[in-house]
Amino acid sequence: MTQRVLTGITTTGTPHLGNYVGAIRPAIAASREPGVESFFFLADYHALIKCDEPDRIERSRLEIAATWLAAGLDTQRVTFYRQSDIPETTELTWLLTCVTAKGQMNRAHAYKAATDANEAAGEDIDANISMGLYSYPILMAADILLFNAHRVPVGRDQVQHIEMARDVAQRFNHLFGRGRELFVLPRAEVEEDVATLPGLDGRKMSKSYDNTIPLFEGGPKALKEAVARIVTDSRLPGEAKDPDGSSLVTIHDAFASTEQRAALRADLRAGLAWGEAKARSVALIESHVGPMRARYEELMAHPERVEDALLEGARKARAVALPLMRELRDAVGLRAMVAVNRPAAKQAPARAAGKALPEFKQYRENGLFFFKLTAADDRVLLQSTGLAEGREAGGWVKRLKTEGAAALAEAPVQRGEGVDAADVEAALNALVAAQA
Amino acid sequence: MTQRVLTGITTTGTPHLGNYVGAIRPAIAASREPGVESFFFLADYHALIKCDEPDRIERSRLEIAATWLAAGLDTQRVTFYRQSDIPETTELTWLLTCVTAKGQMNRAHAYKAATDANEAAGEDIDANISMGLYSYPILMAADILLFNAHRVPVGRDQVQHIEMARDVAQRFNHLFGRGRELFVLPRAEVEEDVATLPGLDGRKMSKSYDNTIPLFEGGPKALKEAVARIVTDSRLPGEAKDPDGSSLVTIHDAFASTEQRAALRADLRAGLAWGEAKARSVALIESHVGPMRARYEELMAHPERVEDALLEGARKARAVALPLMRELRDAVGLRAMVAVNRPAAKQAPARAAGKALPEFKQYRENGLFFFKLTAADDRVLLQSTGLAEGREAGGWVKRLKTEGAAALAEAPVQRGEGVDAADVEAALNALVAAQA
Repeated sequence: MTQRVLTGITTTGTPHLGNYVGAIRPAIAASREPGVESFFFLADYHALIKCDEPDRIERSRLEIAATWLAAGLDTQRVTFYRQSDIPETTELTWLLTCVTAKGQMNRAHAYKAATDANEAAGEDIDANISMGLYSYPILMAADILLFNAHRVPVGRDQVQHIEMARDVAQRFNHLFGRGRELFVLPRAEVEEDVATLPGLDGRKMSKSYDNTIPLFEGGPKALKEAVARIVTDSRLPGEAKDPDGSSLVTIHDAFASTEQRAALRADLRAGLAWGEAKARSVALIESHVGPMRARYEELMAHPERVEDALLEGARKARAVALPLMRELRDAVGLRAMVAVNRPAAKQAPARAAGKALPEFKQYRENGLFFFKLTAADDRVLLQSTGLAEGREAGGWVKRLKTEGAAALAEAPVQRGEGVDAADVEAALNALVAAQA
Repeated sequence: MTQRVLTGITTTGTPHLGNYVGAIRPAIAASREPGVESFFFLADYHALIKCDEPDRIERSRLEIAATWLAAGLDTQRVTFYRQSDIPETTELTWLLTCVTAKGQMNRAHAYKAATDANEAAGEDIDANISMGLYSYPILMAADILLFNAHRVPVGRDQVQHIEMARDVAQRFNHLFGRGRELFVLPRAEVEEDVATLPGLDGRKMSKSYDNTIPLFEGGPKALKEAVARIVTDSRLPGEAKDPDGSSLVTIHDAFASTEQRAALRADLRAGLAWGEAKARSVALIESHVGPMRARYEELMAHPERVEDALLEGARKARAVALPLMRELRDAVGLRAMVAVNRPAAKQAPARAAGKALPEFKQYRENGLFFFKLTAADDRVLLQSTGLAEGREAGGWVKRLKTEGAAALAEAPVQRGEGVDAADVEAALNALVAAQA
């Protein structure tokens, strides 16, 4: 069975070489595995919790989206979208909020860490803690459950949140599922052997240590300058060097083939100068990063292309989220008020009397595909919007014919002039009945 | 200046005569005052906090909506909608969640009452408290702020929540307004002299006392039977009776003219039998309630009409909510990624060279109004959906011409086949520039 894998991408900060090697590259590689359906999203609602600098949020979203696209994320294959383009996310957050025990939130690690810090400082335990920080595990559960993801690759610190998502999913299934599993129970997939790249000083590469090598920023020049600053021992050219435990070698290896790795080791042991080894590493990294940087710069110069890719991703994502949300709304009681005694009103007499049924017509105009529903007296009951694909129009006609009025809320249609909802509903019911 | 007044309607339970006199009738009367723009909504997201019986939620929403409509709520004049039809509600809830201090929520009365009860019972203070109960003041703030309501009529127990909404609005304005007031600061309007109707036993009429008189349920027969059960003193026909302090008289008076009130008082003092007084009251109440009940029953037999009224209300409500939400998203940094150097790309050279501008065309088809944007080479760049009103189409054309690509996210349009977003944007920019 296809496994859905969902990955959230934090939209604060600018990605560095360590992010690329440790997160971006392996995630993109995993998205190409067979049997995997990948969802990647920019977690920009989450970004609002920590950041009240709107321009930074804006800039960071663009940089990060452009980075993933430039690094080879295949938007034909994966679903790549912004969290904030999916209105169902916050709606589901509220449904889950209603079935989440407050006691469980009190035990969330991120919140506990903040209260511990307050206690240590002699402050009120909730001092400076926002409701965003406190309740974001519910938003995170909504991110996951909305797409019924099977697997969520996360760091160890996030495992608890996936367990909370499981718990709330289980509770919701129990309360509202009537025996059905509305939600898949997601599983945390802990990345045990994440390649963490060392930074310039040998510690883990991290913005907080100020020891990063830029991924795209500053071009080849900045890359070269950063690599030049990697700390090595002081052995001179000609002296044998130990490649093991050298940050430079680890960084080199993250981009090297087996042969290249062996060659650098042998050459260092034979006395290759650190400067030479650095030059070789820069050339190697640049051979990988250069083409990506070119794509990145092209995208940064055309943000509207990134926007377009994300909007297309949002359309794909909502095609998954909407049908589930419709089920969930129905399950909790947020249902459309429909004509009573619908089964009895199956219009059998009309059929028996040979009365003409309403009819769907599909047509094409100005390069777009349309359909309309006309009554027996030729009045236009429903008129579709222009659709890009013929099969999309066909799909809607089929749904309206089989699901009847229930499909109306979703369908890209408007009622004809002077036509009221009851007429449309009766017409659709007649068609559904005719198919039964 | 027009004052926006917003009233939330709880969607649990079936309205009784006390609800009608104490809440429904005065609210409808207030909505008819000049200078008032009223928003009434069914608080069905709130209903989910306390109720995990989906069928009850469904039934109650219908009964309550039908009651308000039958009681004379004029949907032409007011905006009457379901909270759950406004996706912006939960989105705004999240934005507000990020700027709400947890400490403030700890002080909310409803939550404090629940923790006090737990403490008294020797339980964990958060035992059986859901995140819904804890955080619903934020949802309530979103309900209010999304429509920039000036006044919110509430009972005394809700004043604190309106103050919380003010606080969060103030904080949001401060953080993200850049000097503008994104939110109106709402004011609680405490109904000091609410007409509380006594119930059958003389205590306040309330479902929890099981002393209610039905409003519509059970027809005139149930009304008559309930009034017959109103407790009176035991004075016999012919004996003088004291009208003051009699529940029956209070209930009678809630529907009576000044003359009718005086007459009943005089007659009771002159010895009118309680049975007679009850019959007179039933006739009086029925003269008011009867016509409403007929409308109510008609609506309950045609839920699709209620649905239609609510969907129309949701359209009106979203026409207010969407532009504000667009501003809010922009303010916090959730912005569309647009072509850089837009001002520089004002296409002045094209105009100087006399190159033909793209053109909007409006037309009518099958009773609906459409517009499209065509390029100089006659390619269709944008195609609208069918709109019910010609001026709606005109309004969109005007907005697209003046706001350019910024209006695209809202506009009811799709791109033509093979047209990419950059083409559309360039065309709109050219039009904006041509107007400048």
